[in-house]
Amino acid sequence: MDNIYDLIIIGAGPAGLSASIYASRYKLEHLVFGVEQGGQMNEIYDLENWPGEKKISGADLISKFVEHVEGFGAKINRESVAGISKLEDGTFEINCAKNVYKTRAIILAMGAHYRKMNIPGEKEFTGRGVSYCATCDAMFFREKTVCVIGGGNSAAVVALELTDFAKKVYLITKEEKMSAEPAWLEKIVQNSKIELVKGTGVIEIKGRKNPADSRPEGENKVEKVVLDKAYNDKNNLEVDGVFIEVGTEPGVELAQKIGVMTDEKNYIKVKEDMSTNVPGVFAAGDITTGSSKFRQILTASSEGAISANSAYKMLKLKQ
Amino acid sequence: MDNIYDLIIIGAGPAGLSASIYASRYKLEHLVFGVEQGGQMNEIYDLENWPGEKKISGADLISKFVEHVEGFGAKINRESVAGISKLEDGTFEINCAKNVYKTRAIILAMGAHYRKMNIPGEKEFTGRGVSYCATCDAMFFREKTVCVIGGGNSAAVVALELTDFAKKVYLITKEEKMSAEPAWLEKIVQNSKIELVKGTGVIEIKGRKNPADSRPEGENKVEKVVLDKAYNDKNNLEVDGVFIEVGTEPGVELAQKIGVMTDEKNYIKVKEDMSTNVPGVFAAGDITTGSSKFRQILTASSEGAISANSAYKMLKLKQ
Repeated sequence: MDNIYDLIIIGAGPAGLSASIYASRYKLEHLVFGVEQGGQMNEIYDLENWPGEKKISGADLISKFVEHVEGFGAKINRESVAGISKLEDGTFEINCAKNVYKTRAIILAMGAHYRKMNIPGEKEFTGRGVSYCATCDAMFFREKTVCVIGGGNSAAVVALELTDFAKKVYLITKEEKMSAEPAWLEKIVQNSKIELVKGTGVIEIKGRKNPADSRPEGENKVEKVVLDKAYNDKNNLEVDGVFIEVGTEPGVELAQKIGVMTDEKNYIKVKEDMSTNVPGVFAAGDITTGSSKFRQILTASSEGAISANSAYKMLKLKQ
Repeated sequence: MDNIYDLIIIGAGPAGLSASIYASRYKLEHLVFGVEQGGQMNEIYDLENWPGEKKISGADLISKFVEHVEGFGAKINRESVAGISKLEDGTFEINCAKNVYKTRAIILAMGAHYRKMNIPGEKEFTGRGVSYCATCDAMFFREKTVCVIGGGNSAAVVALELTDFAKKVYLITKEEKMSAEPAWLEKIVQNSKIELVKGTGVIEIKGRKNPADSRPEGENKVEKVVLDKAYNDKNNLEVDGVFIEVGTEPGVELAQKIGVMTDEKNYIKVKEDMSTNVPGVFAAGDITTGSSKFRQILTASSEGAISANSAYKMLKLKQ
């Protein structure tokens, strides 16, 4: 007979890794899938709200999580999950390009990914001035002028982060009032490199194009953004880089294929114990409607713990 | 006009302190009340499920939380809260012996305290052999024989902890199967100092009494526990110490006085955003019915964060 796992956790961000820590405490034979450990946490430059850590980078915190997980003997599998199927006996198959894994229970913890704006120039200049990851790309804009598009916490943090490199940062927000935490807003107002451009959106990204030169470091590069409402009598802002921070979307395709119910925004509907409508399938973290939709590393971790406890109780009942 | 806080958090355990960390990020003028920081966490000898910390004591983790809270400039007030009252204008008064504090919102995070067994001898020998805190008292039983009463995780951990000092530890559990995590059960079975006494309860604690000697270190001391079902043909076990680990009860008296609704076990009923039935009053941590009643440091912290976010949103709406 094939080896069958008690539990497979899909996603190696805070939810998936916390679920693994609890699963190890319960002695569940389990596997964590994550092509990239940490997910969105890797893009967090400066984290000040993980209790007990006054200031830590997302990457450093996730490394501590991974060390904890692996210290308990659990494995993080780097294969990409291509599909999930539910078998007639109530167990599941996880399909990767080369291998198939069997499991009695699943925790979906794939998190969310960055939302695109779908405006002209966005796709064309991605990697050539347009970025969704300041932590990855900020250093390429030393002494340059950049803009950040967005009004929430992540836009605020990214704008501050960019001031370590860029000479000037426009923070462009559609709303008249940013939704970012006051602690970040205060820092933004105090930072002389940041200019707040409120109440206007970006409708196009323009730049120099040389179809003959397709090198990432080549001649194609962003030159300006077009605003939908004039700012200081100008409809354009000249920038060398555009950082898009307009929120996230859940990575839910795998789940929908096995009939897991989602809300109107595609987040997985979970009960209080993190179970979904499909027996044996649990979900945790940014991908769910849980924690009153307050999506934080801390709330994701807590959901991970609860989901592992619920999976454990279900498996014990079946013994 | 009197100074009025945006938020008062009652309780300085993981829920209250995490709430404070988030409240500081939101720039809420707030105060945390806690006679003793950390609450039950101080009794945790060995903690292995706080993500990112492979092994830490409860006291050390709570110190990191307190440092985080105070690093943001928030204050922990050591006064004991005697009462809460709701004023007609929708604000609240927090009454301490000497001072009165006014606030717009409250987070109740008083946690839970140890449950008593209410058996003969328990009260009489408390502090004279009967203990609810192994971390505090284990060292007094060096090379002695002790018992732990309980079947859950805390009983398991306490039994293991006591083996660092005692020469022999009986772990007495009413059920035939302990509910503790398998990881702990495995360690217990492997520990030669621990003897598992399953399927029997303790109905009385007996000892030597000398009414003339009332000193804590005096002659009054535990000598044995009486079992309700014979073990190895004996109805008594000779022990020098009794550690009671039969669960916790929420510290909910303050809340009930202002009309906060609780469930049949006295835990505060919370909605998904950690609000209670009383407008302006939120609750978080072991005192609530939240997190699918899976009461952990991690879930308490997450509830603290959610409650602070909800309080912040409520206060912002009122501005």
